[in-house]
Amino acid sequence: IERELQSIMSSNNNGAAAVNKETFRQHVANTLERRLFYIPSFKIYRGVAGLYDYGPPGCAVKSNVLAFWRQHFVLEENMLEVDCPCVTPELVLKASGHVDKFTDLMVKDEKTGTCYRADHLLKDYCKEKLEKDLSLSAEKAAEFKHVLAMLDDFSQEELGGKIKEYGITAPDTKNALSDPYPFNLMFQTSIGPSGLSPGYMRPETAQGIFVNFKDLYYYNGSKLPFAAAQIGQAFRNEISPRQGLLRVREFTLAEIEHFVDPDDKSHPKYREVVNLEFLMFPREEQMSGKDAKRIRLGEAVSEGIVNNQTLGYFIGRVYLFLTRLGIDKERLRFRQHLANEMAHYAADCWDAEIECSYGWIECVGIADRSAYDLRAHSEKSGVPLVAHEKFLEPREIEKLVIAPVKKELGLAFKGDQKKVVEALEAMNEKEAMEMKATLESKGEVEFDVCTLGKVVTLKSSMVSISKEKKKEHQRVFTPSVIEPSFGIGRIIYCLFEHSFYMRSSKAGDEQLNVFRFPPLVAPIKCTVFPLVQNQQYEDVAKEISKSLTVNGISHKIDITGTSIGKRYARTDELGVPLAITVDSTSSVTIRERDSKNQIRVGVDEVASVVKEVTEGQSTWADVQWRYPTHSSISADE
Amino acid sequence: IERELQSIMSSNNNGAAAVNKETFRQHVANTLERRLFYIPSFKIYRGVAGLYDYGPPGCAVKSNVLAFWRQHFVLEENMLEVDCPCVTPELVLKASGHVDKFTDLMVKDEKTGTCYRADHLLKDYCKEKLEKDLSLSAEKAAEFKHVLAMLDDFSQEELGGKIKEYGITAPDTKNALSDPYPFNLMFQTSIGPSGLSPGYMRPETAQGIFVNFKDLYYYNGSKLPFAAAQIGQAFRNEISPRQGLLRVREFTLAEIEHFVDPDDKSHPKYREVVNLEFLMFPREEQMSGKDAKRIRLGEAVSEGIVNNQTLGYFIGRVYLFLTRLGIDKERLRFRQHLANEMAHYAADCWDAEIECSYGWIECVGIADRSAYDLRAHSEKSGVPLVAHEKFLEPREIEKLVIAPVKKELGLAFKGDQKKVVEALEAMNEKEAMEMKATLESKGEVEFDVCTLGKVVTLKSSMVSISKEKKKEHQRVFTPSVIEPSFGIGRIIYCLFEHSFYMRSSKAGDEQLNVFRFPPLVAPIKCTVFPLVQNQQYEDVAKEISKSLTVNGISHKIDITGTSIGKRYARTDELGVPLAITVDSTSSVTIRERDSKNQIRVGVDEVASVVKEVTEGQSTWADVQWRYPTHSSISADE
Repeated sequence: IERELQSIMSSNNNGAAAVNKETFRQHVANTLERRLFYIPSFKIYRGVAGLYDYGPPGCAVKSNVLAFWRQHFVLEENMLEVDCPCVTPELVLKASGHVDKFTDLMVKDEKTGTCYRADHLLKDYCKEKLEKDLSLSAEKAAEFKHVLAMLDDFSQEELGGKIKEYGITAPDTKNALSDPYPFNLMFQTSIGPSGLSPGYMRPETAQGIFVNFKDLYYYNGSKLPFAAAQIGQAFRNEISPRQGLLRVREFTLAEIEHFVDPDDKSHPKYREVVNLEFLMFPREEQMSGKDAKRIRLGEAVSEGIVNNQTLGYFIGRVYLFLTRLGIDKERLRFRQHLANEMAHYAADCWDAEIECSYGWIECVGIADRSAYDLRAHSEKSGVPLVAHEKFLEPREIEKLVIAPVKKELGLAFKGDQKKVVEALEAMNEKEAMEMKATLESKGEVEFDVCTLGKVVTLKSSMVSISKEKKKEHQRVFTPSVIEPSFGIGRIIYCLFEHSFYMRSSKAGDEQLNVFRFPPLVAPIKCTVFPLVQNQQYEDVAKEISKSLTVNGISHKIDITGTSIGKRYARTDELGVPLAITVDSTSSVTIRERDSKNQIRVGVDEVASVVKEVTEGQSTWADVQWRYPTHSSISADE
Repeated sequence: IERELQSIMSSNNNGAAAVNKETFRQHVANTLERRLFYIPSFKIYRGVAGLYDYGPPGCAVKSNVLAFWRQHFVLEENMLEVDCPCVTPELVLKASGHVDKFTDLMVKDEKTGTCYRADHLLKDYCKEKLEKDLSLSAEKAAEFKHVLAMLDDFSQEELGGKIKEYGITAPDTKNALSDPYPFNLMFQTSIGPSGLSPGYMRPETAQGIFVNFKDLYYYNGSKLPFAAAQIGQAFRNEISPRQGLLRVREFTLAEIEHFVDPDDKSHPKYREVVNLEFLMFPREEQMSGKDAKRIRLGEAVSEGIVNNQTLGYFIGRVYLFLTRLGIDKERLRFRQHLANEMAHYAADCWDAEIECSYGWIECVGIADRSAYDLRAHSEKSGVPLVAHEKFLEPREIEKLVIAPVKKELGLAFKGDQKKVVEALEAMNEKEAMEMKATLESKGEVEFDVCTLGKVVTLKSSMVSISKEKKKEHQRVFTPSVIEPSFGIGRIIYCLFEHSFYMRSSKAGDEQLNVFRFPPLVAPIKCTVFPLVQNQQYEDVAKEISKSLTVNGISHKIDITGTSIGKRYARTDELGVPLAITVDSTSSVTIRERDSKNQIRVGVDEVASVVKEVTEGQSTWADVQWRYPTHSSISADE
């Protein structure tokens, strides 16, 4: 069964597999909900779409994932962790571009007012046609496939056009739909009592770091590179949330902003990841319809597939992070953004995608965002967010000096003077030197002032262009930022799917669910079961529990009279790696979840053995070798 | 200096002390801001009142406090931790009472529209009069003192009356003020695109637990008592935030809801705290103008000062939590709420108050809220949030049965019938049995129907009252909830003040700042300094750094050429407990922050010594005894 269910996951996306995936997903979801890994929020009030609670085991898994994230990134990389509020004034999100551009296109049912995401409706329509319309012509099929491929690139008008063309109506009522219009996905609120200070719940944690760049750079001894990190809630007011835990309205992000000199994107620890080899899906492979392929990371960087060392280093660290959590290597790939997916300022961008029953899901984005964010906040706030490189010796530097002669320009262009001056000052070196040459040879030059929408004629008296040599003691520049951004909830959901399997009970009459969480992630590290209900065994169990607590090991005592087999099954379903059965007052049996192997360990050694295995100093194989095997027929067999 | 500064804190609140407290606070605040423990949020945009970021060391302190909270409460008490969203639909907060009652009274500047908290203005007016008006009559002084004492109890009208009477105007403009009116302190937003689903950012985390009671009770094997816990952000849209980090618009709460049988509030681990003795401030002492006094917790419970064992147990656990973090025992007290401070449903309520430069600050509330919250959500949602006690043997129980005869009542009272029926059914046993007796003896009875505001006459044909014996197999009841609720930011701020001291540099020319954080809390556990800049020492430092990382110990390398004394001073200011100076390639010096004592430890043992001390297995005194003292004149002397 295990193989069967898991094989479904890797099979191709044909009809039967889709049904099986649905079954697998339903099975995992039932187990997760029944054992309170998560709970639809406000369930007794019928819930709210896109909001979920983590129940006790889910919350423990989340804590463990975040603690490991802190160890793996913040501690090991000496990052500066910060913690900023969720409530954010409009000004900040105006600068970052979210107020204007953080939107999805929405259509409304013209009669009921119900809202839908325009691209979802078009996607559903095309998919349904392709799957169910048997009379579909090859030509039409090709068209629908093309639409699906282009969906993310459609403009507001193109989306509206397609919806009209196909006659798509509201799915619930079949009423006509409005034209698509942008809906901002931020939750809006108002700060303070006046109603005059609009604010939003942050859509990402990154802005809190950018606005603090100046202080953090100083804190770091005014040295680059350094990274700041933040874990926290983020919010997106989705139009119509789908896909359970994958697309929600509130979620935990863990983000890193690594600031680096744009002229030197090498990384001191790069060689530690250079020999990792895993599935990568470069732009070229995607464009030519090929599959993802295994590439050695060092090769991807040296061949320029990955833009630079630092980006490569983080891709490697993300790979290690995810696989150590228990994500299946074979269902993890790094996909490069296509040129049209990336923002214009981005130098390169890779998503860690994990395959689950919903397909390949973007769980971590790793982007080289160049200097965009710091520049945007510098401009809006007027506070320079820059770094300095002090030269050991002053350097002679040639600087371009463009000096418009305002008096002459004023006489010639009157009201247009300001725009001409601005356009002159905005010239780059090449343009300026060409102008200088033309002015010197011809005495005048034609100059295209975009902001005026016309070409003007400049005389040599109107502007002086020269190169001056200056001694400079330092270089001032805006750092580039490389941003690995982790969707913690998505990673956890994929981990649930990758960890889940089923096996038959010994009697063969039942299918039992197991989560094969690594000890690092497991919500509870071990259970303590007195074999039978008696005072002596209960006392030993309590003693063991005490020593586990002192050692900081989360555990659960179960003193119900239920059979040991049933108690094992209950805790396998929570992914508890070790179970201690108290069947004497001097030594006990420890059973490992997946192998079901058992060893005998003295009562006073139990806590240290459990600690060793669950904290990763030893493997189960190590301790199995050190302690006698418990070979009597185990109670769950 | 240390003694002087700290003594300021415990001196009485006279004028001079107030100035000194202000100086002390400013000194702490400067250090905290300069070293980025916290940063006013969105500082480059001039900030937003009441929003703060935790910078790197502050964020680390917060992580440490929360990790210890999880260990001390969730792990040691086997609590069920959950994690619910901040965005909350109106329905839920309507049920909890927040939509209607979570308000402060506000007045507006009638010309500029600037808003103020009405009680703040009245408080400031009275305080200023008392402090600065030398011509104040004894009578007037007594009146102002009375107003200050009663401030929290004033109604909207009373507050408005006093503001008018005293002629209080807007502090910034001296313009007239509006009458006070309630302003809801929740940040409002809208869930989904339709604009038809109002929501709020939660003002506390507790509601997420209450609405999940049914599932959590089942998860706990349908057994009481059990506790659920949640750590998360909460939001209050303060009218005009004051007091820096103490009154903010977004903050981290850690809340526990301990569900217990209202008929049995004993606690199995109660005896573990029974001998703790600390400052308590019972209601009686407050009413009679006495001071807080040291009481043994067991005594407070057995004498009925604290309502029950479970409440007492949590008071004890909170005391241990706070003092282990580093809160000064002498500036921590547990103050009981006065009758008029408590909600009508609360059985008892105690605040852990910590004294800092702002006075005694409520940092943890520990309330027995009886069955209020679960009942409120049961009613609104229609889902019974109850517990069951199964009887070992069925019990015979006498039940009161009140059966109104609706036909007769309808004829007699027409439209008022419904209210009469409701009033009849709401009678308690005593009232019902008295009515039954009167009806039997006189054939009719006078009955006061509050909801009608009149007395009606009932005949014996209109209602039948009887007691029936029934066999019951279980008891169904709404559990009581005991709620310890921790304001994490406030605790941390008080900890900063209690940990701060100043000492002279050896040369005596400088005052150096130190935070005496316990290792548990310290943001960075140790620093590594090569004594001089050379490759050999740097290599050793890097080797030590690696082994510290493997052991999960946060640390900082400082390879600048700055003098060791300056490097010590820098890290003392961050509260780093241990500093490792690399002055040979075989062994190094470890220096303790507060005593400045130094020991010699071999390079390969350093990490394990630091781990022992910072994780609490050994004290500094223990290791000092084991290793040779480094007696050469230390570099910072």
